[in-house]
Amino acid sequence: TAERLAFHALRDPRARELGPALEHAVRHTKLCRTCFNVTEQDPCRVCADLKREASMVCVVEQPRDVEALERAGVFHGRYHVLMGALNPAEGTEAEQLFVQRLVARVREGGIAEVILATDPDAEGEATALLILEALESAGLAPRVTRLARGLPAGSAIEYLHKGVLEDALSARREVRPRRR
Amino acid sequence: TAERLAFHALRDPRARELGPALEHAVRHTKLCRTCFNVTEQDPCRVCADLKREASMVCVVEQPRDVEALERAGVFHGRYHVLMGALNPAEGTEAEQLFVQRLVARVREGGIAEVILATDPDAEGEATALLILEALESAGLAPRVTRLARGLPAGSAIEYLHKGVLEDALSARREVRPRRR
Repeated sequence: TAERLAFHALRDPRARELGPALEHAVRHTKLCRTCFNVTEQDPCRVCADLKREASMVCVVEQPRDVEALERAGVFHGRYHVLMGALNPAEGTEAEQLFVQRLVARVREGGIAEVILATDPDAEGEATALLILEALESAGLAPRVTRLARGLPAGSAIEYLHKGVLEDALSARREVRPRRR
Repeated sequence: TAERLAFHALRDPRARELGPALEHAVRHTKLCRTCFNVTEQDPCRVCADLKREASMVCVVEQPRDVEALERAGVFHGRYHVLMGALNPAEGTEAEQLFVQRLVARVREGGIAEVILATDPDAEGEATALLILEALESAGLAPRVTRLARGLPAGSAIEYLHKGVLEDALSARREVRPRRR
């Protein structure tokens, strides 16, 4: 939460007036030079952890997406935080996102797979496409994957809306009985 | 809603005391002989509609799942309603579901694909497996598919829980730039 507050404060100088706790957070929080997540130490905990798989990079929009994935404990590679999603209508253009820094990371080598984990909405899709094209323009060809879309685990068909059902149907997969 | 009430009333004789409207619904609602959806006419509207793709059958747990899919307007084939999901702890066994009626429908011919659209939870998965094995035991081999699991369209990574993120990661798909 301190990091989250700090992140907003970094973008809004008025927030600095809010008090010393916030000032502390602002002063001690920075962006990791590798993955651009907000952190109090650079490199951040994930980038500094040698047990994490360095050849897989999960690209997310926001520091809170890293938080969600870490809380779930389902991903054991590294991250790359874009600090937003493409949204020209609201003033977020490609140059404001850390896309070229991702290209540079891939160019340095050692990255076998880039997992695009931007949100499953229009901005997230546009951002995923932007990254795909940026890597291609740079002549880089790591394996690029996108998180699957479909029915959320634990939900019920009857409560899902059109977009979810549409995705689930169009990405349906063939299943076969287990060999006995 | 009349159909839904009627469906519950059919299972609970006490509900018949609730009034003439309900009695009407109970008296006039039946199960479609082909797909087992609740209906006032047999065959039901979907089974009677020659414009619907008869070679694709979407298998769901409940009449309300048909309702949700029809409301979304994303599926243009036929349905098969199981009337429940496998849940031995709560007393729903395989014999209580219309699985063998599905096997019989497939045996009759004309069905190229069976889409398993049971819920993305433990009971739904067990039910999907039951159907897969019932078809195999009967020596039938239509294409069998399962609705995709993953991130629900329009959601945000930061709010999704472990099971959803796990599915989305494990079913991630390779993406490639569009050819220019």
